[in-house]
Amino acid sequence: MIMHATRTPLATYLKHRQALIHRALDTVLPPAGEAPSVIHEAMRYSVLGDGKRIRPILTLAAAEAVGGALEEAMPAACAVELVHAYSLIHDDLPAMDDDDLRRGRPSCHKQFGEAIGILAGDALLTLSFAILSARRRRPAVWIAVARELARGAGTFGMVGGQVMDIQGVGRTPDRQAMDYILTHKTGALITAAVRMGGLAGGASRAALAKLTRYGECVGLVFQLVDDLLDRDGVVPVWGEAPTRRKAQTLTGEATQAVASLGRRAEPLARLAEFLLTRAA
Amino acid sequence: MIMHATRTPLATYLKHRQALIHRALDTVLPPAGEAPSVIHEAMRYSVLGDGKRIRPILTLAAAEAVGGALEEAMPAACAVELVHAYSLIHDDLPAMDDDDLRRGRPSCHKQFGEAIGILAGDALLTLSFAILSARRRRPAVWIAVARELARGAGTFGMVGGQVMDIQGVGRTPDRQAMDYILTHKTGALITAAVRMGGLAGGASRAALAKLTRYGECVGLVFQLVDDLLDRDGVVPVWGEAPTRRKAQTLTGEATQAVASLGRRAEPLARLAEFLLTRAA
Repeated sequence: MIMHATRTPLATYLKHRQALIHRALDTVLPPAGEAPSVIHEAMRYSVLGDGKRIRPILTLAAAEAVGGALEEAMPAACAVELVHAYSLIHDDLPAMDDDDLRRGRPSCHKQFGEAIGILAGDALLTLSFAILSARRRRPAVWIAVARELARGAGTFGMVGGQVMDIQGVGRTPDRQAMDYILTHKTGALITAAVRMGGLAGGASRAALAKLTRYGECVGLVFQLVDDLLDRDGVVPVWGEAPTRRKAQTLTGEATQAVASLGRRAEPLARLAEFLLTRAA
Repeated sequence: MIMHATRTPLATYLKHRQALIHRALDTVLPPAGEAPSVIHEAMRYSVLGDGKRIRPILTLAAAEAVGGALEEAMPAACAVELVHAYSLIHDDLPAMDDDDLRRGRPSCHKQFGEAIGILAGDALLTLSFAILSARRRRPAVWIAVARELARGAGTFGMVGGQVMDIQGVGRTPDRQAMDYILTHKTGALITAAVRMGGLAGGASRAALAKLTRYGECVGLVFQLVDDLLDRDGVVPVWGEAPTRRKAQTLTGEATQAVASLGRRAEPLARLAEFLLTRAA
């Protein structure tokens, strides 16, 4: 059943989608008992904990916005969430951010050791492409979805953003590097999540262009709100009020971009609003 | 031009193939000057150094054995070599094997730092799927090639073998774990390399089955010869002579498996012999 965000409170819609996505992820992840079990346990531990599931929710909403079925887009939704999960595991490693906690629990390498942490991240990234390439129907669509994910996750996307971010630590912020991080670190994968949904949902070229604009805007908003919540990134440079105004303008642009897709795109508009006003 | 191993010395054939593969890898890797340049430098450093290129050579030979063109299989060859390169970078990390040297030079994390080492590995794995999903023609073929790579590289393949290997350190070798490592750690990716070539080369179902058997045998031989050269793995348990005999038998089986593919498969037979008799 498709729940229309226009008819249900957003919180209900999000909860319902989170549950659907959780169930799908549970199915695509290898069972914990399957050998070598420690890696499967580590993967499940990292993916099936609490998570807002922003990216896969956007993927599903984008597919529905162009008339695609929820189930048809679910592999794309799972793939993008696995990539997000892998990036968190590797980000938390001692050589990177060195975080002992993730979502209120020990981070993957704290729980399973550093070697398993590295390998669990590698395995999740591999699994994301395994899921997409397991599709037997519509190979041209799914290869395009995989292309999108690889672009969003690679050195011209998420990994590129992380590299710039690492290199910037302890330096005076440079405007060019700041812009790069802003659009790449989280934005590239969010844009990819939206486009993957559009592709899986059978978007026309014109509809895909609208979704792309939407994805770029909400990707930027996501990072700006992160910066506002953490009081870092662009906030110390731009100031709080200008950063908030920028995020508001972009949210308006995102909504405008998909308005002509009609009622089916209303969840996307409400999700954009949610991403602007979120408090965590 | 296709060089027939039957008409040229194997050393010439290998050198020619290595040069072709090197050129192709050089093209698929982002230029070192492209931002963020450090990650692209690290990727190029790790991939474009000396390498035997066993896996991509097998991919190309498998494609040709079923009548495919060399150029058509090159993206598959590059993808499998990038996965191999990523696995070496992550294996060398302090939390894994902690190796300072790789192919006579500082390992990636020694040269670029641990964070960039982790990210360069991630980026190479991502790039391997980017290359496969960039194919616009024959999407059903290329999605099957990607499926094969994901299977060979994941937790039921290479990563699974590494996990078992890590867990076995300092323990009494257990027969089941030893068999698992033997078939998974290097064998799974080698089998995938051969099958990927077959798929890219347009193999029939029957021909693919023959290539699969060939790949499984040479994958095992590769690991057995590694163990013989390093005097570890199965050698302390099975003994040197039985291990060598097993490798010889498997090489015979590999050659037999592809014999009915005719003259086009002769390079595969000669490569199997080479893998058995290699001294490094």
